[in-house]
Amino acid sequence: MGTVYEKTATSPVNIAVIKYWGKRDTNLILPTNSSLSVTLSQDHLQSKTTIRASSDFEKTRLWLNGVEDTDIEKNKRLQNCLSETRRLRKEYEERLRKDKNVDNVIPLSEYNLHICSENNFPTAAGLASSASGFACLAYTLSQLYELPISTTELSKIARQGSGSACRSLFGGFVAWEMGSQDDGSDSQAVQIASQDHWPELEALICVVSDAKKDTSSTEGMQNTVNTSTLLQHRIEHVVPLRMKSMIKAIHERDFQKFAEITMQDSNQFHAMCLDTYPPIFYLNDVSRAIIRVITEYNSSNPERKLKAAYTFDAGPNAVIYTTSENAPEIINLIAKYFPGNENTRDYFSDPFQLFVGKAIGEQPLPLGFNDQIISVFPKGNVKQILHTKVGEGPKVVAGEFDGLLNKQGWPKKLN
Amino acid sequence: MGTVYEKTATSPVNIAVIKYWGKRDTNLILPTNSSLSVTLSQDHLQSKTTIRASSDFEKTRLWLNGVEDTDIEKNKRLQNCLSETRRLRKEYEERLRKDKNVDNVIPLSEYNLHICSENNFPTAAGLASSASGFACLAYTLSQLYELPISTTELSKIARQGSGSACRSLFGGFVAWEMGSQDDGSDSQAVQIASQDHWPELEALICVVSDAKKDTSSTEGMQNTVNTSTLLQHRIEHVVPLRMKSMIKAIHERDFQKFAEITMQDSNQFHAMCLDTYPPIFYLNDVSRAIIRVITEYNSSNPERKLKAAYTFDAGPNAVIYTTSENAPEIINLIAKYFPGNENTRDYFSDPFQLFVGKAIGEQPLPLGFNDQIISVFPKGNVKQILHTKVGEGPKVVAGEFDGLLNKQGWPKKLN
Repeated sequence: MGTVYEKTATSPVNIAVIKYWGKRDTNLILPTNSSLSVTLSQDHLQSKTTIRASSDFEKTRLWLNGVEDTDIEKNKRLQNCLSETRRLRKEYEERLRKDKNVDNVIPLSEYNLHICSENNFPTAAGLASSASGFACLAYTLSQLYELPISTTELSKIARQGSGSACRSLFGGFVAWEMGSQDDGSDSQAVQIASQDHWPELEALICVVSDAKKDTSSTEGMQNTVNTSTLLQHRIEHVVPLRMKSMIKAIHERDFQKFAEITMQDSNQFHAMCLDTYPPIFYLNDVSRAIIRVITEYNSSNPERKLKAAYTFDAGPNAVIYTTSENAPEIINLIAKYFPGNENTRDYFSDPFQLFVGKAIGEQPLPLGFNDQIISVFPKGNVKQILHTKVGEGPKVVAGEFDGLLNKQGWPKKLN
Repeated sequence: MGTVYEKTATSPVNIAVIKYWGKRDTNLILPTNSSLSVTLSQDHLQSKTTIRASSDFEKTRLWLNGVEDTDIEKNKRLQNCLSETRRLRKEYEERLRKDKNVDNVIPLSEYNLHICSENNFPTAAGLASSASGFACLAYTLSQLYELPISTTELSKIARQGSGSACRSLFGGFVAWEMGSQDDGSDSQAVQIASQDHWPELEALICVVSDAKKDTSSTEGMQNTVNTSTLLQHRIEHVVPLRMKSMIKAIHERDFQKFAEITMQDSNQFHAMCLDTYPPIFYLNDVSRAIIRVITEYNSSNPERKLKAAYTFDAGPNAVIYTTSENAPEIINLIAKYFPGNENTRDYFSDPFQLFVGKAIGEQPLPLGFNDQIISVFPKGNVKQILHTKVGEGPKVVAGEFDGLLNKQGWPKKLN
């Protein structure tokens, strides 16, 4: 057995604070507005991908969370990412051969691939896994192929898999610049600030139980583009100002401004969904009750400061950004009003050890908080609270045992 | 005992299909956009008001639904309506005396009033009673004072009590023209079409149970004006086009267009509420489920026609406009998915005798309707279905026994 050409890497989840909603090109995935996100720590949420290239493989295959996708030929977005990286690899191989006179270039661009990918968080949680997944695919391919391109260049490839995937290629705070070129050559991710820039910033993800099947974001956003009479105004007049203000707020670590824009933009994104015809609903009564709690928390505190900012993607889950000092209060509030079936570690694993010897949901409420603002919900409406922080971008995993493929290049685990 | 100066009149409820949301003058109640409504039949929903003027009354008093409002001096909107009609009465009296040489003019403008008003529908139902109530007040005063003014002129007085009250002064289809004058002299209601114009048009009001206290519309709409970055675009660019299209649709009895604009404008009004900071929510999970049912009903029928149009005001109740042929199907659908605690006459009184010998909620679903679109809700989430149609404007009640005051000028009934 000769050299094994295989790489394993991990990639983070990102949660937008200025929302991406609407494509101007659905094939290249070019957005109608710029967006901005925070990359979350891979300690709690990550995708991992192992890719091997081999001349022995009969065809390119993909396993997602232990299940083979036997229909990848029809997955246009996946094919776009594969062909784009293969093309770059081919160019690179030719350059090595011709310009640099390297004579033993491995023709990886001609080999089939075995791609195995999984998430360390349940897909059922409704957390967008396509962003971290496609970021991981693009990043792992770029490592395997040793592509001599920048992360921003690579982000344009990930973008073609899933728009927001481009933002998961950087840690910290990331802007997806919408660009103006028809070929997408300037629609790319850039890092606004690194993961170390604002160490106090943390995120709480409230996993909200929801029976209803949501409208997929791919379908939903194009319905909005086609039918909303307000979206164009948002795109042209609202988002550009918010992008500027948000970048400034992040650079200055101004949580007041960060929180305000985050909440306003989440509200407006869901307003756009409602202005769609027929309307799209992602927020449910629990989501709205979380908004009420956070609004009361922000307006009732004696310091008169915004201490938390909610944001909701295309589903009922809340992500609450806050700073470390306020996290315990907020976790306790959520656990009080939205108790889990059992407030055990399945509900909240307390990774930062904030409630050692203390029961969550049973601590005193914040000073000034009006506890009549909403009723306590029946158990289980929030299934889980995840506590995490700002994190780093994709990284290669070095260890032999960390890969998802066995020695022969097949998945170690299958479901 | 001399002549009694007393009048009793009734006024209808109106439900907007192009929504009023935002004031440019909060004192005069001048709106930021024109709006358009359908006046509903007084057979099912009406306000009734009796007003007596007497030199014997020590002060002006008001009883609402059997309870005296002892603080009317501070009710600026009520005082605006009273002083405005009194002023016109005074002018009229002077004109009679001077120009026409009438020498026994009754100085009603100097008398105190006893005003007694009630609704034939429960206030708890959350149906806007201020529109019909203030329309009734203004209309009854104009009749008592024998004011020589047009209904459109009178609408400007009712408008100062409650904005949408101006639209309840006409039957049929009514536009509130926003006007452009600072003094409100051109912000008035005009009739677009009479109550006989479109006899097939009917309305179903689904009274939705809701524990949460809503943001008042008065407070809510100004928060939207102050914080939404989209409202101005709606005001300037969306509503003017919709007003034109809606008036055309009504004139042509084009239910397709009427339904489309009605639903789009309800969606956009609630989108504006969501774009408010902090956001305002009037729709709840039941409201949204009703939207899903109507959307499925409209998209699944073999004729591919819009057969129903939902609209929601500042609360979770749905009003569904439809034509008489489709009403039974829709009532049955609502009763199936949102059963009452008991599907008896309290839940649906069947005023048009559509379900004689048939159980509502148990009839076959419409052809093509996907019954898996939502789950059946627990009983009581919709408390009542009211079935009504387009109706006439305010009218004087002639009979002696129909008044709400006794011979001495005091309320017959007190709670």
